[in-house]
Amino acid sequence: MSTQSPPVLTRTLCAALPGTPPGSEVLLRGWVHRRRELASVAFLVVRDRSGLAQVVVHEDRERLAALPEETTVEVRGTLVENTSAPGGVEVVEPRLTPLTEPAATPPVELWRPSLDAGLATVLDHAAVTWRHPARRRGWDVAAASLRGFRSALALLGFTEVCTPKLVGGATETGATVFEVDYFGRTAYLAQSPQLHKQQLVGVFERVYEVGPVFRAEPHDTARHLAQYTSLDVELGFIEDHHDVLAVLREALAGMVAAVAEAVPDLALPEVPAEVPVVGFAEALEIAGAPADEPDLSPAHERAVGAWALAEHGSDLVAVEGYPLAARPFYTHPWTGPERPGAPGTNGFDVLFRGVELVTGGQRLHTPSAYAAAMAERGIDPAPYADHLAVFDHGMPPHGGFAIGLERWVSRLVGATNVREVTLFPRDLHRLSP
Amino acid sequence: MSTQSPPVLTRTLCAALPGTPPGSEVLLRGWVHRRRELASVAFLVVRDRSGLAQVVVHEDRERLAALPEETTVEVRGTLVENTSAPGGVEVVEPRLTPLTEPAATPPVELWRPSLDAGLATVLDHAAVTWRHPARRRGWDVAAASLRGFRSALALLGFTEVCTPKLVGGATETGATVFEVDYFGRTAYLAQSPQLHKQQLVGVFERVYEVGPVFRAEPHDTARHLAQYTSLDVELGFIEDHHDVLAVLREALAGMVAAVAEAVPDLALPEVPAEVPVVGFAEALEIAGAPADEPDLSPAHERAVGAWALAEHGSDLVAVEGYPLAARPFYTHPWTGPERPGAPGTNGFDVLFRGVELVTGGQRLHTPSAYAAAMAERGIDPAPYADHLAVFDHGMPPHGGFAIGLERWVSRLVGATNVREVTLFPRDLHRLSP
Repeated sequence: MSTQSPPVLTRTLCAALPGTPPGSEVLLRGWVHRRRELASVAFLVVRDRSGLAQVVVHEDRERLAALPEETTVEVRGTLVENTSAPGGVEVVEPRLTPLTEPAATPPVELWRPSLDAGLATVLDHAAVTWRHPARRRGWDVAAASLRGFRSALALLGFTEVCTPKLVGGATETGATVFEVDYFGRTAYLAQSPQLHKQQLVGVFERVYEVGPVFRAEPHDTARHLAQYTSLDVELGFIEDHHDVLAVLREALAGMVAAVAEAVPDLALPEVPAEVPVVGFAEALEIAGAPADEPDLSPAHERAVGAWALAEHGSDLVAVEGYPLAARPFYTHPWTGPERPGAPGTNGFDVLFRGVELVTGGQRLHTPSAYAAAMAERGIDPAPYADHLAVFDHGMPPHGGFAIGLERWVSRLVGATNVREVTLFPRDLHRLSP
Repeated sequence: MSTQSPPVLTRTLCAALPGTPPGSEVLLRGWVHRRRELASVAFLVVRDRSGLAQVVVHEDRERLAALPEETTVEVRGTLVENTSAPGGVEVVEPRLTPLTEPAATPPVELWRPSLDAGLATVLDHAAVTWRHPARRRGWDVAAASLRGFRSALALLGFTEVCTPKLVGGATETGATVFEVDYFGRTAYLAQSPQLHKQQLVGVFERVYEVGPVFRAEPHDTARHLAQYTSLDVELGFIEDHHDVLAVLREALAGMVAAVAEAVPDLALPEVPAEVPVVGFAEALEIAGAPADEPDLSPAHERAVGAWALAEHGSDLVAVEGYPLAARPFYTHPWTGPERPGAPGTNGFDVLFRGVELVTGGQRLHTPSAYAAAMAERGIDPAPYADHLAVFDHGMPPHGGFAIGLERWVSRLVGATNVREVTLFPRDLHRLSP
């Protein structure tokens, strides 16, 4: 008599079933995605992180009836070929074991090919609606983008950094900030890692950070969030902003390559070997805008995007030389060949399919340039004392950029609202779930 | 007559000089790390992100005299062999071009082998003191740890997620939270992604997040920060917490491997193929503590750590089966073989060199278990409504853990205070730089 236990069956992911020998005993674990009851047989579609699998139920129909959609379940059965089943295989003679209590009816039917619900319902029940395979794809794009961004920068010698999200004062843009009660003092949520990432160029030369940034913008639009994920880069010892654009190109190419691998059926932009660059004045001309406009409006950006696609076959286009007035005080003045019009800066925007995706440029790096720029704008240097001290201690010429993850993903998947591709969006009205 | 420009010289990193053919013209860019003036010659040590290089200055001594330590500089010269120079090579006949104005004297002499300053000075001037090679090494360990963590989890099918740092209420631990003025309402800074990461197990099965967490702890200790970087993991379809420990083991092994590559001269722990596990009651016994202690004190943890090293030759040890009272309400009751003493949980801590590094365990996953656990503790379920709803819609058995990056790095490099290995620490007293 043998005292050996039966061999332990390890779980097979749904996506691995077509590659598993027919006749194998398999163990699936996942959610009841869909039940279909026919007269003589019932079908159970199991969903796990890898995909779907069909299970044919003859004997255990009563047990299946007690497993509403979304209940988690364990299925042990035999794998057989069936050319009419999805993936060419299905599981027969199953033993079904629920892993939790029978699930409540979901707010939206997750088994339908598309998620048929209004945005409010989708967001109110985010943790459930993200289970829908079509919706989940949006986050697969986001997660792959993060992976591709980091690997591209690691190859270029960048160091990942983690900067404080609680700051004492001095913020670098005009955006409104959230106030925090910090042990009885007032602190603010950082609206970007701009100042800290510049300081860290003095240490690591090349740094990046992926992290939350906070904007108390009372704008109820399809592209504003109170918290979003910023992909921030800064690098030293540059000649000018073209070195920054070259790194941005590599980062975008890495992101697109990672997305292509993760979500193969998505129509992705080609990232050209060099992103076409157009001067600010030329961009206004292309858009048919007056030459004295201080900035590009969304309509102008769409026109420049259309031009880049027509002229260069490119989804991406950089506009360089923005006027000083349209840029923060730390922006480096234009260093290229002299051009007609207002003196510009080494600041750029990169438009993706006609929408601003990235803002970047070269920054000032000498103490005297900071003193002059702040005096020119009437900015009190006192709140910036910690930051400015770093420039007294030797900083290299440097620049950088920031990509908003949610905007990037929106454009890739064609979402009309950034909230659709944010796991749990935060905005003027929404602080839950 | 030729109209060709001279070939453009590209920058060589200091670390690449020993592998560059002697006689080459080279271009260095970096900081003036140190000048040494002798009667007949001067030496300039240049520092860049890769290391140090020696430059011999004969002609240009006046220019060198105008380049105080930490000024950024460009050096063009000829590479020659010199067995007595660091790395066996040095740069001669240099042309020196400053890249900024002469640097102010740093608050600490960065060229000395060790950073000779009190913690307050080091932190007050963080952006400058991080430039010291010995200090910088601490962050190299942190950045490598993040890289190793992510690659280990990617191999195991985990999806990276980004959860909200602003939450409306319901926090899962007793830790004190920061209040935020959120468009006129009160929001809180998330003290962990615990609830959201559990919810997302319902979508992706296996998730991780690297991000800031916030604790308004009025503790002025060497191990508490108001913001720290949490490495959070959660996974579904587990048997019990041992599956969580197995993933934790892979994550730690990945982190150690990445650190070993980045900082080769650091004495690193070996991560055993299986982390030794000891029961809570046994851990009390080892520590010589009364059997009815509800939790392990730091002294007990040190005793268990010493025991693990002596008995198992391991820097790591897991303590499992913590009493329910010492764990949050969502902790799964003990499912292992019956043991003497109080009914425990599938919650564990992992100690690293005798200090708590990771807390984790299996969570409850059925709606009825949540209802019972909250009733038992007298917790009002109303503020948790969004979270609890997810369990009504089918969740798998799941569990996870969190690693504090700063504590991990502290232990690896032997820092006595977590602030030493935090780029810009935030605490009861410190909100800048």
